[in-house]
Amino acid sequence: MKRPVLIAGFLLAVSTGLTFTAFAKEKAVPPAPNGIEIPKDYKNWRLIAPSYRTDHGSIRAILGNDIAIEAARAGKTSPWPDGAILAKIVWKERKDEHWEPAIVPGKFIHAEFMIKGAQKYEKTGGWGYARWLGTEQKPYGEDAEFVDECVACHTPVKSRDYVFTTPAIFPK
Amino acid sequence: MKRPVLIAGFLLAVSTGLTFTAFAKEKAVPPAPNGIEIPKDYKNWRLIAPSYRTDHGSIRAILGNDIAIEAARAGKTSPWPDGAILAKIVWKERKDEHWEPAIVPGKFIHAEFMIKGAQKYEKTGGWGYARWLGTEQKPYGEDAEFVDECVACHTPVKSRDYVFTTPAIFPK
Repeated sequence: MKRPVLIAGFLLAVSTGLTFTAFAKEKAVPPAPNGIEIPKDYKNWRLIAPSYRTDHGSIRAILGNDIAIEAARAGKTSPWPDGAILAKIVWKERKDEHWEPAIVPGKFIHAEFMIKGAQKYEKTGGWGYARWLGTEQKPYGEDAEFVDECVACHTPVKSRDYVFTTPAIFPK
Repeated sequence: MKRPVLIAGFLLAVSTGLTFTAFAKEKAVPPAPNGIEIPKDYKNWRLIAPSYRTDHGSIRAILGNDIAIEAARAGKTSPWPDGAILAKIVWKERKDEHWEPAIVPGKFIHAEFMIKGAQKYEKTGGWGYARWLGTEQKPYGEDAEFVDECVACHTPVKSRDYVFTTPAIFPK
């Protein structure tokens, strides 16, 4: 192999590497304005419950990380243990074209999270809140104060450790 | 230790063992009338989609085994691959007492399954069907002919490989 070919090959390898790095950075999901990073792998978490909101026109699935699932299935959610993460995945409602009276997931609206840390998130009731919008996963909120909205909405269920969801019943 | 104590200890151990064995047998879930065994560990499967049926007053989660999830997320469901299992978990609808316009899972109604086996289940469109009722998981159907009901209901979506569910959209 001649030197110019070697150099060209080297430059190609470097530029390809740079392109991949830039692409990877573009695809990375930015943290929420309060610094919370999107939990990895939440799409593979197990189910706590589905729900449907007639006032919001959306159908949902509440998933949990391993700590949350263990707590939910053991009925130990009062309070939820530190490290538990609840993910609420929200889709626009859609009428199933093959079964008209069925409501099924349409467009992906957002994924939002409650991360339990009694000490770490003491100022917001022991939970860290974050939300990412759309399949592009854009962080929700202009600044860190966005959590005031989350806390205000969840405060009516303070006696339930701020969680609306009751884990669905499964056979033992 | 004196002999009577040893004998008493031995009898206690034997009877405890028998009790546990009997209990374990009582808890085993009988197969469906067509011989299909309830898939193990389905409660820990990942989500394909939630749904809500206004005509049935029930809210559902469609879960999949690993083969089904891989196919669903890769968009390779036409047809679904052999070995894919879809679990539909059905709960009676309930109004959330803390958020009135929300419909959430109440009583557990049943878990039903579609098991893909193009050859094995050729007579029923390439899918094996089974359902277990309630948290006691009682097999559905008087005899093996119960599948006629399943096939009849799913035949309108034959062009979708007999599956109503469209996998919910997730971010990449």
